[in-house]
Amino acid sequence: MIRAKVIGATGYGGVGICELLLQHPEVTIGALVAIENVGKPLSDSYPHLAGHLDTIVQSPNATDAQSPHDVVFMSTPDRVGMKLAQAELEKGAKVIDYSGDFRFNDADGYADYAARLGLETQHAAPDLLPQSVYGLPELHRQDIRKATRIIGNPGCFAVSCTLGLAPAVQAKLIETQGIICDCKTAISGAGKKLQAAFHYPARYENMNAYRLSGHQHVCEIERELGRLAGTALKITFTAQAVPMCRGIMSTLYGTLAAGQTQASVLAAYREFYHDEPFVRVYDHSAALGTIHVRGTNRCNLVVGVDERAGRFRVVSYIDNLMKGQAGSALQNMNILFGFPETTGLDRAGTYP
Amino acid sequence: MIRAKVIGATGYGGVGICELLLQHPEVTIGALVAIENVGKPLSDSYPHLAGHLDTIVQSPNATDAQSPHDVVFMSTPDRVGMKLAQAELEKGAKVIDYSGDFRFNDADGYADYAARLGLETQHAAPDLLPQSVYGLPELHRQDIRKATRIIGNPGCFAVSCTLGLAPAVQAKLIETQGIICDCKTAISGAGKKLQAAFHYPARYENMNAYRLSGHQHVCEIERELGRLAGTALKITFTAQAVPMCRGIMSTLYGTLAAGQTQASVLAAYREFYHDEPFVRVYDHSAALGTIHVRGTNRCNLVVGVDERAGRFRVVSYIDNLMKGQAGSALQNMNILFGFPETTGLDRAGTYP
Amino acid sequence: MIRAKVIGATGYGGVGICELLLQHPEVTIGALVAIENVGKPLSDSYPHLAGHLDTIVQSPNATDAQSPHDVVFMSTPDRVGMKLAQAELEKGAKVIDYSGDFRFNDADGYADYAARLGLETQHAAPDLLPQSVYGLPELHRQDIRKATRIIGNPGCFAVSCTLGLAPAVQAKLIETQGIICDCKTAISGAGKKLQAAFHYPARYENMNAYRLSGHQHVCEIERELGRLAGTALKITFTAQAVPMCRGIMSTLYGTLAAGQTQASVLAAYREFYHDEPFVRVYDHSAALGTIHVRGTNRCNLVVGVDERAGRFRVVSYIDNLMKGQAGSALQNMNILFGFPETTGLDRAGTYP
Amino acid sequence: MIRAKVIGATGYGGVGICELLLQHPEVTIGALVAIENVGKPLSDSYPHLAGHLDTIVQSPNATDAQSPHDVVFMSTPDRVGMKLAQAELEKGAKVIDYSGDFRFNDADGYADYAARLGLETQHAAPDLLPQSVYGLPELHRQDIRKATRIIGNPGCFAVSCTLGLAPAVQAKLIETQGIICDCKTAISGAGKKLQAAFHYPARYENMNAYRLSGHQHVCEIERELGRLAGTALKITFTAQAVPMCRGIMSTLYGTLAAGQTQASVLAAYREFYHDEPFVRVYDHSAALGTIHVRGTNRCNLVVGVDERAGRFRVVSYIDNLMKGQAGSALQNMNILFGFPETTGLDRAGTYP
Repeated sequence: MIRAKVIGATGYGGVGICELLLQHPEVTIGALVAIENVGKPLSDSYPHLAGHLDTIVQSPNATDAQSPHDVVFMSTPDRVGMKLAQAELEKGAKVIDYSGDFRFNDADGYADYAARLGLETQHAAPDLLPQSVYGLPELHRQDIRKATRIIGNPGCFAVSCTLGLAPAVQAKLIETQGIICDCKTAISGAGKKLQAAFHYPARYENMNAYRLSGHQHVCEIERELGRLAGTALKITFTAQAVPMCRGIMSTLYGTLAAGQTQASVLAAYREFYHDEPFVRVYDHSAALGTIHVRGTNRCNLVVGVDERAGRFRVVSYIDNLMKGQAGSALQNMNILFGFPETTGLDRAGTYP
Repeated sequence: MIRAKVIGATGYGGVGICELLLQHPEVTIGALVAIENVGKPLSDSYPHLAGHLDTIVQSPNATDAQSPHDVVFMSTPDRVGMKLAQAELEKGAKVIDYSGDFRFNDADGYADYAARLGLETQHAAPDLLPQSVYGLPELHRQDIRKATRIIGNPGCFAVSCTLGLAPAVQAKLIETQGIICDCKTAISGAGKKLQAAFHYPARYENMNAYRLSGHQHVCEIERELGRLAGTALKITFTAQAVPMCRGIMSTLYGTLAAGQTQASVLAAYREFYHDEPFVRVYDHSAALGTIHVRGTNRCNLVVGVDERAGRFRVVSYIDNLMKGQAGSALQNMNILFGFPETTGLDRAGTYP
Repeated sequence: MIRAKVIGATGYGGVGICELLLQHPEVTIGALVAIENVGKPLSDSYPHLAGHLDTIVQSPNATDAQSPHDVVFMSTPDRVGMKLAQAELEKGAKVIDYSGDFRFNDADGYADYAARLGLETQHAAPDLLPQSVYGLPELHRQDIRKATRIIGNPGCFAVSCTLGLAPAVQAKLIETQGIICDCKTAISGAGKKLQAAFHYPARYENMNAYRLSGHQHVCEIERELGRLAGTALKITFTAQAVPMCRGIMSTLYGTLAAGQTQASVLAAYREFYHDEPFVRVYDHSAALGTIHVRGTNRCNLVVGVDERAGRFRVVSYIDNLMKGQAGSALQNMNILFGFPETTGLDRAGTYP
Repeated sequence: MIRAKVIGATGYGGVGICELLLQHPEVTIGALVAIENVGKPLSDSYPHLAGHLDTIVQSPNATDAQSPHDVVFMSTPDRVGMKLAQAELEKGAKVIDYSGDFRFNDADGYADYAARLGLETQHAAPDLLPQSVYGLPELHRQDIRKATRIIGNPGCFAVSCTLGLAPAVQAKLIETQGIICDCKTAISGAGKKLQAAFHYPARYENMNAYRLSGHQHVCEIERELGRLAGTALKITFTAQAVPMCRGIMSTLYGTLAAGQTQASVLAAYREFYHDEPFVRVYDHSAALGTIHVRGTNRCNLVVGVDERAGRFRVVSYIDNLMKGQAGSALQNMNILFGFPETTGLDRAGTYP
């Protein structure tokens, strides 16, 4: 039995990992840390947890918040985790950070990312960067497994696009230039913070593209795909918001390489993800939607080719709060601690 | 380990009990029976179950559909279960029926109910009625426990209203006449069958009262409350539909008995439900909604008195597909087989 | 042609009256006043108005904001209009205020109301109160018509409940005590201000009762109904929020007076509203919902009796931003200036 | 004053044109024709029209349904209008058909389209095809104006994509091959017909791609763009459904031609649509969504370039039932009859 601390427990990402940990047979929740609702049970702000998780939320400076734990989930904004990680590592913890702080294991990669968000580009703990691993198990399982102590949990769009494109890029099913990621996200991806665009009357019947001048998740995707392709590449990425709570649907386009067909592409995807517990590959006759992955750690890929126009097209479906966030975090924890990878995650969602 | 058969597996009620049984450590799903999608895995029509429940759906007449099981869930329309129950009982099963077929353990009670729905009023298996028990454990736990073989799982509105009013009626906190049940339901309560009123464009921004001339669940509520009150009573019941998927909010009004106050009413409710695992009592300062019970077997009651007008008011929240249907069914199964009552149901929902 | 000024133009209430005034053949919009988006066209914050209303928003202190107009709509929070009204009156305007400031034409009535909201109970312009008229034309048309210069536009719940109960109370179809108003509102009723309860992920699948200890609209309803009844009365009022943008559904209950029936009640309602352009009376077989009044100034009443329980029940449907706010304001303006009452309001909504 | 007949009056497209005609100063509605709700006022099935349009719905064979009118709107499924048009033309009407029947003015073009839908490919009135004009005024205004008697109203996706790409293709801002149309539609686009995918519980929290093997609107788009480009071209088209009632957002990608920049592209679009009353061009800093065109005949285009990747990207927003259907139909009628083009359409939507 290991003990977990959740920093940022009162946001959606914190609550999400708490819900999952409550069902995990090998973990107990030792401490909840946040800067709001301090001194009250978490179930005060999240009444669905009443009777399940009535643990008191601690201020970051409280003694209990500082106590050592085996694993620390940092569901905190950019540039918070980087300041807390060293102390947790010294107390013996393994750290899983949700932000961009540890998604890049060199200072330059981080600086590019930070610049896109208008953040300070200097990392606060550059010495830790080489020890960190990008937490996408389907591509980095071995690195996560071997003695890693810091995981940079991937961005939700990045999970969706990278899983959807990795086989195509690695097996050169498509050309490396001209990739387009047309991504639609539900609103919980923006977290709990109030924003005018997410006020119910402004959102219930509205969809829109946003941040057209550049989204920060592009860095991760290009880094991962470039690594697989063996060459740098640039993608076109469009973020769009739709009136839903959970779900990302990314429609991914590329120029089909010579000789590739619907059948060859499908076969390559099935081969690539053959042993993956959380990725399923479907052909383009499948009637799937985000609702079929809601509440699960699954990524469903509908793989096809527009043969009229000679174009490759994959539709990638995830739950942004699960495979896109807390689910991936738990999957990473399972690998870090040698638990079976599906522990606490092997559950169908609920429908409808 | 017991084996379960689900008849009507392809409706929302059938899928709901399947999802729960998959998580129950003492049950395996032996057979799925339905009249649609026959011959295909259940996961074909419900892709979220892929890899979790790929069992083939059997036609009712198939040999496998006829095999004996320990428990049979009949998630079937009115007047179907009554024709199937005897054969299942003879094969040794315990039967839990979702419809009104076994909610009334005498033929007259059934006839009243059936008349409201415009159904034939003659029960098809009247000999079985005396053996059946109304499956609301909070009021009938002892009867369910003792060798019962047929459970009439309660209606979703009935669960909501009866739990919300039982303490008041039993302890005579309110007068027996003049009770009003103002009920609002999400759309999944009407099941999977297509209806013009539930077509997305007609529903996304619409709320309405319906069936104002009489709803069939009134019979159950009046029977249960009358039993507790020791006298027949008539309620006024209003069914209303709102654009949501899951949830019932019933606002329940009564004339406060002399001498009762906010404090006395609250104390009586807390006493009544003190040991109940699934019912929680809150005072009227609680900020609760249906979302806090979604996906759970909970009933949350916000108990209060409008002291200005001398009126009793309770707001009762459930998930119509859980405590209002499959969750209650599983709770009943746990009692019937002597499992701890919360087995497979002791889980917080997910938020948001 | 008259000229209108809108104070509080950047809120939902301000935009709503602007949309209506744009279609009104006898009015031009002279000035838009607000404390946000000052100096920019209104169409900057409300792009649907681009090309229709690109007028610059003025700060309250700007010279243009002070210029005289024939009618001034004050879509401002409580206690703002009362400080601005005198100056506008002196410049010759007629004033229509959306808040509670002029809904009570005596200082005591106002104090009761203000206390419920936790506001200062002393009115800032008590001398103006006797000149004000409550702007519910169906009950006060004659008073509005005769030289009135200040209208207190009614609260949205109050419109819904008062119209739904007025005939019953006046004609003594029901007893004066024991009236219950069970009200469900869409979210736009709370305006544009961000609140945690109205963040999309917290709301899309949630309904809840709120402010159970007392809602401020009760004062208006009791005053109006008491006046019609000829005696003071107290109602029980429950406010509930559902995931919709526009619409109020109020289900109104009363104890049926001796001798009243479905037919007599329906006849009385039809008589009462016979000449009203915006109120329609239906019997309880009508399949109506809020969507059928959305975008219109209509109030649809489904009038019935629960004959089993001897109880009166009316379901009242309005659009909270139209008959519940800007539509009523325009109707009041039409009366004040002698225009046909339906001018600019005689339009079906759009469906779906 | 002209008289209009609406065939298919009880569908969304029929009701939509009725709502618009009610506000048009130069038209009266003479006859409503449909195959359901025959013999009853249209307001029976659409209660928001009560008092506005209580005209009786006629069966197609009724005498009144056959009477001559100046304009006939055929809001009918594919292959219905082609059988009715000749008779209406002979009675002197101008005909506007919503289906694909008259979108192609030669038999081969029709056959391609019909094949995609699995329809019979032989047109039933091939002699009429050369007389028909494709009803997208921004590209075909002159042809519509000159004595045309049959308009093939364009498909909703086609309006969205063609308007979004026309300037780029015509001015060769992009290469003709490699165009991608990633389209997201609200659910009303599928009409009133019940479908499992549009049942509220299946849809409220679901988005999905559909018909990945080919959508029928592709034919129109390729024909129109090919004409502008002066060469045949093939696009990749993805249809996606999101949980909304009204709105299409199409994100349109192309390979930027050498030398083109954000500024040059924006300038070309502004020039192209300079005099268009219903198309507005914005740069990519605009915060727009479908809600800003809801209920209007507008098409808003957010025009930009992904300069990192050298890719052209336009986001096109329309209301699928207005500019995508009934609004375009009315715009076409205005041109056919010489009314100012914005008559009855010059109105902002409502917000929120």
